[in-house]
Amino acid sequence: MPAAFERRLAVRTKGVTSSAIREILKVATRPDVTSFAGGLPAPELFPLDAIRVATNKVLTEHGATALQYGATDGVLALRQLLCESISDREAAAAEAAGLARPERLTPDMVMITTGSQQALDLIAKLLVDPGDLVGAENPSYLGGLQAFRLHQARFAPISMDEDGARAEAFDAPSVRDAKLLYLLPTFQNPTGRTMSVERRVAVSRVLAELGVPVVEDDPYGELYFDQPAGPTIRSLLPELTLAIGTFSKTLAPGLRLGWIAGPKTVIARLTQLKQSGDLHTSTLSQYVALEVLRSGEMASHLERLRQAYRERAEAMLSSLAASFSSDVRFTRPSGGMFVWVELPHGIDAAPLLPVAIEQEKVAFVPGAPFHPNGGGENTLRLNFTHASPDVIRSGIARLGRVLNRSLTTSLA
Amino acid sequence: MPAAFERRLAVRTKGVTSSAIREILKVATRPDVTSFAGGLPAPELFPLDAIRVATNKVLTEHGATALQYGATDGVLALRQLLCESISDREAAAAEAAGLARPERLTPDMVMITTGSQQALDLIAKLLVDPGDLVGAENPSYLGGLQAFRLHQARFAPISMDEDGARAEAFDAPSVRDAKLLYLLPTFQNPTGRTMSVERRVAVSRVLAELGVPVVEDDPYGELYFDQPAGPTIRSLLPELTLAIGTFSKTLAPGLRLGWIAGPKTVIARLTQLKQSGDLHTSTLSQYVALEVLRSGEMASHLERLRQAYRERAEAMLSSLAASFSSDVRFTRPSGGMFVWVELPHGIDAAPLLPVAIEQEKVAFVPGAPFHPNGGGENTLRLNFTHASPDVIRSGIARLGRVLNRSLTTSLA
Repeated sequence: MPAAFERRLAVRTKGVTSSAIREILKVATRPDVTSFAGGLPAPELFPLDAIRVATNKVLTEHGATALQYGATDGVLALRQLLCESISDREAAAAEAAGLARPERLTPDMVMITTGSQQALDLIAKLLVDPGDLVGAENPSYLGGLQAFRLHQARFAPISMDEDGARAEAFDAPSVRDAKLLYLLPTFQNPTGRTMSVERRVAVSRVLAELGVPVVEDDPYGELYFDQPAGPTIRSLLPELTLAIGTFSKTLAPGLRLGWIAGPKTVIARLTQLKQSGDLHTSTLSQYVALEVLRSGEMASHLERLRQAYRERAEAMLSSLAASFSSDVRFTRPSGGMFVWVELPHGIDAAPLLPVAIEQEKVAFVPGAPFHPNGGGENTLRLNFTHASPDVIRSGIARLGRVLNRSLTTSLA
Repeated sequence: MPAAFERRLAVRTKGVTSSAIREILKVATRPDVTSFAGGLPAPELFPLDAIRVATNKVLTEHGATALQYGATDGVLALRQLLCESISDREAAAAEAAGLARPERLTPDMVMITTGSQQALDLIAKLLVDPGDLVGAENPSYLGGLQAFRLHQARFAPISMDEDGARAEAFDAPSVRDAKLLYLLPTFQNPTGRTMSVERRVAVSRVLAELGVPVVEDDPYGELYFDQPAGPTIRSLLPELTLAIGTFSKTLAPGLRLGWIAGPKTVIARLTQLKQSGDLHTSTLSQYVALEVLRSGEMASHLERLRQAYRERAEAMLSSLAASFSSDVRFTRPSGGMFVWVELPHGIDAAPLLPVAIEQEKVAFVPGAPFHPNGGGENTLRLNFTHASPDVIRSGIARLGRVLNRSLTTSLA
């Protein structure tokens, strides 16, 4: 780097060294490799016809508006539709759980973001000063950790069990002192774990007492296999929660459309921050999503997605059971995109990755980087949404051979 | 705001109080008001047919790729085309100025951003620590000042004359100490001023000696009336300059497509920062722009834009000469989107805005907020691209009445 820049780098850039997701995406694009590494949705399941029809309609009927500058908080009609669909889902979840029906969202409680990644950046800008503690599940989503780390956060890891973050974990002094708590309660990235209804209620009770702002990241909630996961933390703690959602997993990531729902005064502050971040999110993308939602095609599309992803998850889980040694543990997600694998202690997943790619043309993500304060060297993440069941079965069998050879060697 | 958030706001948010551009955009949308306030391109001149054809082609021929996650630095084919067109323009400008032909850009020297506003946010993240000085023309682009201010920059104002930033202005100690220099050498926002070729060469010589990184923001360079403005600072100082460009003024702002061109090692660091900012820019937008560029329609489209904007500028300038008192000064831009007006000293533009809207249904932007460290209360900015020549003539005549009444009152 030219010295004029090198010597002037901001302090916050010092922590930005590697570029894990980017390296993952690079591996994922080699055509001869079966990649379970990325977090990519299945492109053959994109609702391409619905998007094409919607785009034509947008450009024919209000092209000039869809191509012009727009409001920073997003296209009002899209925010209105989002409020309706989120509020309907929250009402149904409350009813199923026997809880009081939450208040419905209004458009001033929702802003559109450039993917949910921008939502994380904006929330970090709003709340994180250098050195502040951010409570995060251990392990947690890499992109979330990166966004908070860039703003020089430190992390307070929140321990998990099979039902997600443990209610007792929030009693830790570092968690109590956190500036915000970053949680993925539903089909978590990277573990695939989901808080039970009871856990959600118990955790919300603890959080209400703590009074620390909660960021509820929920990219996968609509991708359940059999039934939705339960009430959102937002619906249980509306004054304390910023809920992040996205169209990337349900419609298409290339549109870069996410949102934040929360108290309207906080949304107003986040909107100010978005102004200096990118003025507003692509108007074309917003109008395309709006027309797809209006077309009524989403319900059947989501049903297709759920069925396909359930089949893929089943293919992965049965192959894992058949091909992996019995001392390898793995999660059994009820939705989302990921299975989390724990190798026996002492087995490091990272050095296995180049071996797996080289010898068996199969890729995964080593789990250590998902742990905010280190650890987890014996873990790895597998994505099941981007390959067909047959490709998954073959790839997991090959990955099993790599692992079994490694286990044999380490025992020898 | 809920107390849980209020008491945890990051220090950087303290400086983010008003939301000037947003308020401007609100005024601009009232249908009964002739607004010279925004920086909106003419929507009736959007190349809607070319965009519709391009979009159909993208969704038909490679829809899945255009809707999937993409590389953080952008679609390679688009970056390649950008390199070609920027390098061609830089070569022509060098030849016209009798200067050596600059090295051509390569794709690793260019990254795509979510509008040029994101470019400013990323550069601020890369270089600005709290309290750092940023040198900026006085006055300068509001969105640029906001992006640097959010990262807690202080400003070192760079004085201008009719040829833009003065070469001597860079000798000021505060400018010499700056972390970076933010310049708009061509059809500047807000003044419409442009550095002459001689000024560009003189300023570049001073900048080379200073060795401070330069951010050259050039949204309007292609919108010249008669001829391009001269060599870019980037082409004169390639190792010291990050050049920001955008499709917002040439194609359509709603796509949210900008770029940064600079030393490849700096681009690599900015790409890392973009990852945690929004992962990548809309793939759909990028492919649509790529197909429009490939269609060969841009040259004639730009020619139409230049002619229309020249007519509108002429309508505004002749109306200003006819309707405004002779002690009101205004710039005579040779491209871009703005005319800058200086009222006699002691006349404050801000209180005239509500009067103009109320009494004469015409809006402008008061100039004070464009001044990084205050001042400029007697200035205002007028946009000439968003209204037809007739609407401009009528609006400027009405604005003249407001000003003349105010001048008469202040003299009385």
